[in-house]
Amino acid sequence: MAYPAKKFINDPNDVVTEYIQGLVHTYPALQYLDGFPQVKVVLRADVSCTTYDKVSIISGGGSGHEPAQAGYVGEGMLTAAICGDIFASPPVDSILAGIRAVTGPMGCLLIVTNYTGDRLNFGLAAEQAKSEGYKVETVIVGDDCALPPPRGIAGRRGLAGTILVHKVAGAAAAAGLSLIDVAAEAKRASEMVGTMGVALSICTLPGQVTSDRLGPEKMELGLGIHGEPGAAVADLQPVDGVVSHVLMQILSPETNYVPITRGCRVVLMVNGLGGTPLMELMIVTGKAVPKLQLEHGLAVDRVYTGSFITSLDMAGFSISIMKADASILQRLDAATKAPYWPVTEDGNRPPAKIPVPVPLSQSAKSDKPQSQPVSLNKQGQVLQEAIEAAANAIINLKDSLNEWDSKVGDGDCGSTMYRGAKAVLEDIKNYPLNDAAETVGEIGSSIGRAMGGTSGIIYTIFCKAAYTQLKENSHSGVTPKQWAEALAASIAAVSKYGGASAGYRTLLDALIPALSVLQERLNSGDDPSIAFLLSSEAALAGAESTKNMQAQCKSLQEKVIEYRLRGGTRIAKNQFGFMSRKSTTEAIYLLWRLMKMCRGLKYGDFLF
Amino acid sequence: MAYPAKKFINDPNDVVTEYIQGLVHTYPALQYLDGFPQVKVVLRADVSCTTYDKVSIISGGGSGHEPAQAGYVGEGMLTAAICGDIFASPPVDSILAGIRAVTGPMGCLLIVTNYTGDRLNFGLAAEQAKSEGYKVETVIVGDDCALPPPRGIAGRRGLAGTILVHKVAGAAAAAGLSLIDVAAEAKRASEMVGTMGVALSICTLPGQVTSDRLGPEKMELGLGIHGEPGAAVADLQPVDGVVSHVLMQILSPETNYVPITRGCRVVLMVNGLGGTPLMELMIVTGKAVPKLQLEHGLAVDRVYTGSFITSLDMAGFSISIMKADASILQRLDAATKAPYWPVTEDGNRPPAKIPVPVPLSQSAKSDKPQSQPVSLNKQGQVLQEAIEAAANAIINLKDSLNEWDSKVGDGDCGSTMYRGAKAVLEDIKNYPLNDAAETVGEIGSSIGRAMGGTSGIIYTIFCKAAYTQLKENSHSGVTPKQWAEALAASIAAVSKYGGASAGYRTLLDALIPALSVLQERLNSGDDPSIAFLLSSEAALAGAESTKNMQAQCKSLQEKVIEYRLRGGTRIAKNQFGFMSRKSTTEAIYLLWRLMKMCRGLKYGDFLF
Repeated sequence: MAYPAKKFINDPNDVVTEYIQGLVHTYPALQYLDGFPQVKVVLRADVSCTTYDKVSIISGGGSGHEPAQAGYVGEGMLTAAICGDIFASPPVDSILAGIRAVTGPMGCLLIVTNYTGDRLNFGLAAEQAKSEGYKVETVIVGDDCALPPPRGIAGRRGLAGTILVHKVAGAAAAAGLSLIDVAAEAKRASEMVGTMGVALSICTLPGQVTSDRLGPEKMELGLGIHGEPGAAVADLQPVDGVVSHVLMQILSPETNYVPITRGCRVVLMVNGLGGTPLMELMIVTGKAVPKLQLEHGLAVDRVYTGSFITSLDMAGFSISIMKADASILQRLDAATKAPYWPVTEDGNRPPAKIPVPVPLSQSAKSDKPQSQPVSLNKQGQVLQEAIEAAANAIINLKDSLNEWDSKVGDGDCGSTMYRGAKAVLEDIKNYPLNDAAETVGEIGSSIGRAMGGTSGIIYTIFCKAAYTQLKENSHSGVTPKQWAEALAASIAAVSKYGGASAGYRTLLDALIPALSVLQERLNSGDDPSIAFLLSSEAALAGAESTKNMQAQCKSLQEKVIEYRLRGGTRIAKNQFGFMSRKSTTEAIYLLWRLMKMCRGLKYGDFLF
Repeated sequence: MAYPAKKFINDPNDVVTEYIQGLVHTYPALQYLDGFPQVKVVLRADVSCTTYDKVSIISGGGSGHEPAQAGYVGEGMLTAAICGDIFASPPVDSILAGIRAVTGPMGCLLIVTNYTGDRLNFGLAAEQAKSEGYKVETVIVGDDCALPPPRGIAGRRGLAGTILVHKVAGAAAAAGLSLIDVAAEAKRASEMVGTMGVALSICTLPGQVTSDRLGPEKMELGLGIHGEPGAAVADLQPVDGVVSHVLMQILSPETNYVPITRGCRVVLMVNGLGGTPLMELMIVTGKAVPKLQLEHGLAVDRVYTGSFITSLDMAGFSISIMKADASILQRLDAATKAPYWPVTEDGNRPPAKIPVPVPLSQSAKSDKPQSQPVSLNKQGQVLQEAIEAAANAIINLKDSLNEWDSKVGDGDCGSTMYRGAKAVLEDIKNYPLNDAAETVGEIGSSIGRAMGGTSGIIYTIFCKAAYTQLKENSHSGVTPKQWAEALAASIAAVSKYGGASAGYRTLLDALIPALSVLQERLNSGDDPSIAFLLSSEAALAGAESTKNMQAQCKSLQEKVIEYRLRGGTRIAKNQFGFMSRKSTTEAIYLLWRLMKMCRGLKYGDFLF
């Protein structure tokens, strides 16, 4: 059974009027004529035919090409856009209403895409307006380069090049030129630009059934913007080759569609056809620019990449190349308030982009390898002893940790911790042990390099936060209070970046009580070694307390069940923080081991 | 067999670096660090860490969300963006490189979306940078409102609201604020915004096979931006109801996700997820604004509609609502050069958009009904006689024209011409026959109203162009030369808007020789009635000559055959002008009849 294409619409007959309402809500400088549903005209809110002292620029055509044309209405570009129904030229009365609404004594220029319906309806409206006394000129844009030139009727469709013509004409009008001069600039611009399109899928009209004319491995070259078949069907291939082919077609000396030869300056427009993401359009641009420069010998003075004139939801792009000179560049660079003209920098770009070198660390120290001092002071000796003891304890716990973890996780907690501990033991010979702060920082680096995974980052953050805190405040030796401050900084960082806090059944449930007790005891003047001892007891109690907590980070499975019970049906898998039971397990045991090792040490010698 | 999704890419592993290259080609104010493929950092080309005297704003995350985040790099918004691989957080070294490249003495603010990987990698980079001496603050944005608040870990994903936070922070930094103040403004903004998404299809990663998880009649509510399942699956329905549901979820007083209550001022962002055309996004906006105003009692101060943070090619949208006050609006309105921040007007918008009345014609005459004068002058009498004779001749030719047309077209030429002639006969009682110019204009109006189709427009253009020409130059009666000038103007208009010229086997092949002979004879001083007679003979000969011409406007079928012979395989159906053989047939016969009728008339009395 065939279903209509899925779209975010209401009645398929109302899509254009509802689009216009959204557009004017978004852009307060735009307005529309009160003639729905027949008259669908978007115009500058600040222009009145009775007072406007510049040439008005009017375009339009069938809808389904958004943001064209209404999105180009604004000071410096179009004065009004006449919208037809989807892929249908607007009726004459609608065009006439637009002309009457915005045309002052300077007259108006109609920029019309080369389709029969548009040409005739805009043509008749132009003749009618002239008969009413308006000054009207018309420029017809046909920039398609997909087919060999027909012998007879000029059959080049109007494609994305039209947007560049709008810009040139709009800027010329804004500069105060006469209608004749504005029309001449627009006509000249239209003769300088060539376009060709490629598609991976065709568009589907609102309310209609999707067609997969192309199938899974084909693309169409030289297509239009109304779902009409392209000039050729080809096998899907890397876009690099597609870009080469399209550039060759546009610049072909045989068809001679655009007057561009080696050495010329050009403007490039890469246009998305509605369903193609910006990433792919930029990839096309990234390939097209060097090809134009190196293979075709052209200077690329301006680049515009975006979805400028689309074909509903079609996946595809077109490339337009316009011959550029100072006059055209001046018009393209001129300021405009049209919402969909791309924001760019004025002025010529450098011939090639040379990327910026990756900067080194500004603290030279962290770039040169640390090394253990020749002789250790007392703190250094204690630090070395403690680090080695802790690391060995973790190494010895490897199998137990793996076993415990296998009951709640994937059973590799011990192995992960083992990697970290091993790295610390290997690197310790280079730690500047007489500087406790630097040593804590180095432990973080060892863990970060070797441990991997979420745990590795968490423990590295823990050490780096402690390092920064210690570094700032301790100069010769670290006092007990400074160790406590470092622990506080580490807990804050782990909580902030990890997203957990007390009661979430994570390593913080051991660390937070440990910190509280430590600060409390130190503040009340207890002997620091007692304070540390009590602190480690608090950590142990905290770890034990998690037995009766419900993990806040449930598995996706658990969350799905719970959410379904509450009336929902699905759950987002990235929704909940990082703390698995696994990391809780490993953290608590690590902490507990560290605390136990502290008991035999003098106060202030080290903590962590 | 399953095929990979069709995309315009080269190697799927290179999509991010190739995207960045296209981006910097398009926007010369952007640059990237020379660390491909590991370090993928886009930064302002004009910022150097050694000289930058403002707070740097840095964001980033997995790629696949273009234009986020690199498209928001620019003066007044981000200073650098760190790009990961598709949907993968960037590594710590890459983030550190970005921090080092753009951070000066004022420090930097990291704006991080609330995903585990981003939080941890940016967190570690922040701690590392601090340990190197940089001033670093971090704000984590979680604006998702799709699920009920979790009891524990704050699991709100970072969605489109992040872009608004970027803008607030960027503007605060550009205003010269300190790091602490900039971070405070960003944090406050992040607490003011809520977002919820809806999708019709899920995204496909480069090189992977497309999944149709949803099927043809379903949509997902409350989804994320990485293809993860939404909170609920629902039947497809008109978007009006979907918008209502999403607004209710975001503004729910139960979840209390955003501090917005009746009477508040808000900012609305409608964000496309990559595969949704602008038309549909604008339809969403058009529905959301009045609902916010009328159903939720909110003032909508700013509206942003576009594809700001996407999920590759996913068809979907999200709505973000931010509580606004003077401070936030000032930041949102501040100038920025970031390419993808939407162009908008500053200042509050009017409470409701009242469309502009459709203007009437400026020539009052054409709005009031014409009427036949009480008594006809000589020219008026001849005009009446000639018009009636021509119209009746066409009416009598109806069946013959249909028969001839059935051999080359769809056999309705006679019926179409009949409708036009009938309308002229019905309307003639209101023609101002003493004014030949006005009468010609009125004939055009009758034809335009009744005849329909391409022919109707062509003949209407013909009459209107003649009218304008006659009106300008004739004041009391029309001279033979003025009739000839009118014919020339009509031919020019039909040729211009129709796209045909001599030799294309159209009505112009009768009209052009008729005009040439007429001008020639009148210029050489012949009696005008002789000149008109000879002119009509030339028209007849011209019509006969088309027998041996090849129609320039072939049928699609013919063109396809010809193009295939030339190596192509398909043809575009809108490619070639409007002139079918049908209109050629009807035009030549009409002209011929008119010409014949002229023979018995005195010179200058009428032509057309």
